[in-house]
Amino acid sequence: MLSSKGSARKHLIALVGFGTVAKGLCQILLEKRDILKRDYQFEFEIVAVSTRSRGTMFHPAGLSLSYLNYLALNNEPFVENTKEWDAEDMIRNSNATVVIELAHTDFVNAEPALTHCRTAFETGKHIISGNKGPAAVAYSEMKALARKRGCAFLNEATVLSGTPVFSFFNHSLRGNQVNGLRGILNGATNFILSKMETGSSFDQALLQAQKLGYLEADSSADIDGYDALAKLAILANDLFDLAVDLSDIRREGIATITQVHIEAARREGKRWKLVATLSIDGAEIIAQVKPEKLSLSDPLAQVNGTLNAITFSTDLLGDVTITGPGAGGRETGYAVLSDLLTLNTGDFS
Amino acid sequence: MLSSKGSARKHLIALVGFGTVAKGLCQILLEKRDILKRDYQFEFEIVAVSTRSRGTMFHPAGLSLSYLNYLALNNEPFVENTKEWDAEDMIRNSNATVVIELAHTDFVNAEPALTHCRTAFETGKHIISGNKGPAAVAYSEMKALARKRGCAFLNEATVLSGTPVFSFFNHSLRGNQVNGLRGILNGATNFILSKMETGSSFDQALLQAQKLGYLEADSSADIDGYDALAKLAILANDLFDLAVDLSDIRREGIATITQVHIEAARREGKRWKLVATLSIDGAEIIAQVKPEKLSLSDPLAQVNGTLNAITFSTDLLGDVTITGPGAGGRETGYAVLSDLLTLNTGDFS
Repeated sequence: MLSSKGSARKHLIALVGFGTVAKGLCQILLEKRDILKRDYQFEFEIVAVSTRSRGTMFHPAGLSLSYLNYLALNNEPFVENTKEWDAEDMIRNSNATVVIELAHTDFVNAEPALTHCRTAFETGKHIISGNKGPAAVAYSEMKALARKRGCAFLNEATVLSGTPVFSFFNHSLRGNQVNGLRGILNGATNFILSKMETGSSFDQALLQAQKLGYLEADSSADIDGYDALAKLAILANDLFDLAVDLSDIRREGIATITQVHIEAARREGKRWKLVATLSIDGAEIIAQVKPEKLSLSDPLAQVNGTLNAITFSTDLLGDVTITGPGAGGRETGYAVLSDLLTLNTGDFS
Repeated sequence: MLSSKGSARKHLIALVGFGTVAKGLCQILLEKRDILKRDYQFEFEIVAVSTRSRGTMFHPAGLSLSYLNYLALNNEPFVENTKEWDAEDMIRNSNATVVIELAHTDFVNAEPALTHCRTAFETGKHIISGNKGPAAVAYSEMKALARKRGCAFLNEATVLSGTPVFSFFNHSLRGNQVNGLRGILNGATNFILSKMETGSSFDQALLQAQKLGYLEADSSADIDGYDALAKLAILANDLFDLAVDLSDIRREGIATITQVHIEAARREGKRWKLVATLSIDGAEIIAQVKPEKLSLSDPLAQVNGTLNAITFSTDLLGDVTITGPGAGGRETGYAVLSDLLTLNTGDFS
């Protein structure tokens, strides 16, 4: 019966940013264009792409997807259909119906992403954000602007990359009252703690995570828990409608964890993890990110390496855990596609 | 936007069977009636209940839900609104729009559930089954009958109780090609193997599982893998549209696993689990249930006790695992509710 529900409208996409996630998304869209039309009545064109270093491309009827893939794969400059627009101009002036925000994440003022989102909503365009900034820093404002114009503000790509947490919560747990969650939301710190379990020192594990590209440019974002904090704020705001501010969440990183802690936990049959917790008991809300010694029987204790996981506490099912990738261009590109499909069915509020 | 999508029609429910799952369902429906109407525009009446031992109750305008809960909780006889109908009569003659099939499971001929389903589809009624028989033994026939009349044939309650596997697959993994799954689908055998990990003999663990009520009346259904086999067949047919027959699936139970095996695996850093596998590689399909020695890094190795889990292999996300309860009246009652909500949105095909 899905066939009766899809919007017949073709989605016109503008991409802000053309890095790893955009590349993953373009590859997926190229591979799956026919299947997406057949199975989900999802039709689209990418009409515009804006970057800081390569400028902006725009064609109101759609840019060639295979050419975009070629550009992405080979990191080639933009030479066709170029426009003297920055991202904001592109959002304002293009005929896009949905803007995919993949610019640089900033947790202080979330700029320039916040301006991109505001401009999109002002001009009646949906936002799908892979950028954690807007939802972490200004969720309530964003949501209000979006609602005012009947626009979507979708953030599946911001937490657990493509592992479909938002979709699972909003759809598959329907009918449950969810009283909270506990999650391993940052892959880099989980990799480091997993390495320390096998004998590495903190510094050795940190170095290895850096070499493998798991850490943000500013490694403090991972190590000190800011990344997990932002993700927890997004979950609290988007899934639980809690109007949580980043400063409402207690935060402690993993920099103080040493082999002595790891060994002591092991002797107790436990394991250190950086756990993000949201617990809602009536008006009492606990929101925190901190290292915890978990019993090995806790499903989160078994999530190792760069895997991420969230356990939801529900009234009808007890605990249900979803475990999957927490990073990756293709995986995060899929998260954007998942939001595009949500947009297509109109199941956003 | 959900508000714009629900069917305005009130669902008229007939229950076949009034045991643990029906009790769980009635409790949930009583607790959540207002929320279900407000959040999902889901409205219903239970118009009929048929049992083998207590006869049948029927009222075309709906039986009192609080009275049904009283009867379920106290195991009281049916004295009001009784009818001289068996389940088949009830399905045929009542004004129900949806039949919830919770009668005794039979894996040989799936009766009487199969007749109940046939009668429901013949008379244009949807089927939500908590009974594994119809989907395991005659999926293709059932689906064809259902499609012919535009009816739903929904089976969320048959696998992982309320853990929303079908919903997750059909909705949250949209856009992925799923190439297979591996699952721990039987709680009793997983409990026994977990007990053996902590030193119990097979016989001791079996006895304990029996005492705790985890085993089917015929314990061979669990121990010899028939229950997991039926569930795998349902997943293969319902999710992957494979027209798999029970006899197409290789089956091996856990009766041959001894402490010697458990110990030997431990020395290799591994753990025995009863794993159901479905692997699709073009035309080549592998479907089997058998004990496997899993590396401890395998998410399924960490699913202990009566928990169940399924890992889906996807083209865009790699492996994604969902872990949750595999049994329980309230949990399985929730699975039925989940199917009722699917019915309400019309998202079945």
